[in-house]
Amino acid sequence: MTQNVYDNEEFFEGYSRLGRSIDGLDGAPEWPSLRALLPPLNGAGVVDLGCGFGWFCRFARDAGAAHVTGYDVSEKMLARARETTRDEAVVYQRADLETLTLAPGSCDLVYSSLAFHYIENLEALFGGVRRALRPGGRFVFSVEHPTFTAPSAPGWVVDASGRKTWPLDDYLVEGPRVTDWLAKGVVKQHRTIGTYINMLIARDFAVSHVEEWGPSDAQIDAWPALAEERQRPTFLLVAARV
Amino acid sequence: MTQNVYDNEEFFEGYSRLGRSIDGLDGAPEWPSLRALLPPLNGAGVVDLGCGFGWFCRFARDAGAAHVTGYDVSEKMLARARETTRDEAVVYQRADLETLTLAPGSCDLVYSSLAFHYIENLEALFGGVRRALRPGGRFVFSVEHPTFTAPSAPGWVVDASGRKTWPLDDYLVEGPRVTDWLAKGVVKQHRTIGTYINMLIARDFAVSHVEEWGPSDAQIDAWPALAEERQRPTFLLVAARV
Repeated sequence: MTQNVYDNEEFFEGYSRLGRSIDGLDGAPEWPSLRALLPPLNGAGVVDLGCGFGWFCRFARDAGAAHVTGYDVSEKMLARARETTRDEAVVYQRADLETLTLAPGSCDLVYSSLAFHYIENLEALFGGVRRALRPGGRFVFSVEHPTFTAPSAPGWVVDASGRKTWPLDDYLVEGPRVTDWLAKGVVKQHRTIGTYINMLIARDFAVSHVEEWGPSDAQIDAWPALAEERQRPTFLLVAARV
Repeated sequence: MTQNVYDNEEFFEGYSRLGRSIDGLDGAPEWPSLRALLPPLNGAGVVDLGCGFGWFCRFARDAGAAHVTGYDVSEKMLARARETTRDEAVVYQRADLETLTLAPGSCDLVYSSLAFHYIENLEALFGGVRRALRPGGRFVFSVEHPTFTAPSAPGWVVDASGRKTWPLDDYLVEGPRVTDWLAKGVVKQHRTIGTYINMLIARDFAVSHVEEWGPSDAQIDAWPALAEERQRPTFLLVAARV
């Protein structure tokens, strides 16, 4: 079973204070880019893997989805998602994405934001997603970028001349990374971009877009701290079709 | 026109002394992985963009290709390629890859090893490759990996504890990089993996493999310096089909 760090009190409190938790999708700077990868949702069956507070599920329903199912491992997040959703066509279910079985041919879009880097057996999950999608269906997801997850000691380094760099190492050493983000001992799975893409191709997905996300000039003007994303991206966005 | 650094005396001498220049394909550690991406060559029309000394052209012909054309901007490399090839089905032509026009529907494989990161207008070249390929044709190439080309000051950094890292910055700042590799002022074009992949997808290629190349354990045993490739890859290998 995946480590359920979101139900850790300290992590949950920290996570709840992030911009993306308070302001929802608009609090996530990569959201406009991810949204641009979505198909028309009118009448669609939608699944969100790692739905958290349900922001995307509600967005999909507002955009015309016929039914939306959000899966998450965190009881606390699902409880808040249910509290803030009044719509019978949006269903939240507790699930471990390592072992989740989706009904074959049941949906038109499988979406996931920043969840897959917690999953160890991603091959099985991708296989299940492939089977769950109807012909013409789409798979759109974001994960932490491998340059962000790779280092043995992540964190910006400032050299004597004031130059700020990201100390890359272990890039091709795939597997678990233990970091202290919001709580101690959070385990993430580091994978290269090639691994994500080949995992899709091997399951007969057609890769349609790969984006190593960076902020626009307007976003940097509004939120100067985002500038460092251009030095080393945090997010990888991928779209594929069946 | 692309900078023709290979005809610079100093660069040419340095390049000629590299393992991959002396031992050919077997002197390039990524070659077995690149070769694994090739289609059967029997009877195929093959083009090599940036053919250098002609090692791949001769390999393709030995593997059964019906005709092979190698293009390169360097007179010196083409001269040596012609000297070492006795085969009328292998033709070498001088060409600037920025402006090369390939005959539409003329070949089954377009191959290129470590040439595209010198090309500014890669969109036009990829468009020409797409048109040159017959139905079912393949496009297989390697470029320098973006984590390798990105930094404003490339070079391993060893910290006080002896940890060796690669100082990543400017990853999302695409464009020229001037380095002193074999000669001063060599200009390379830095692009992200996403940019290469989306450039293929936009021209209706189906991406079939993306590999951020690293050495095998056996290769590291035989050539211990290769171990650092696992910290930060130097090569990106891509295969696509029409």
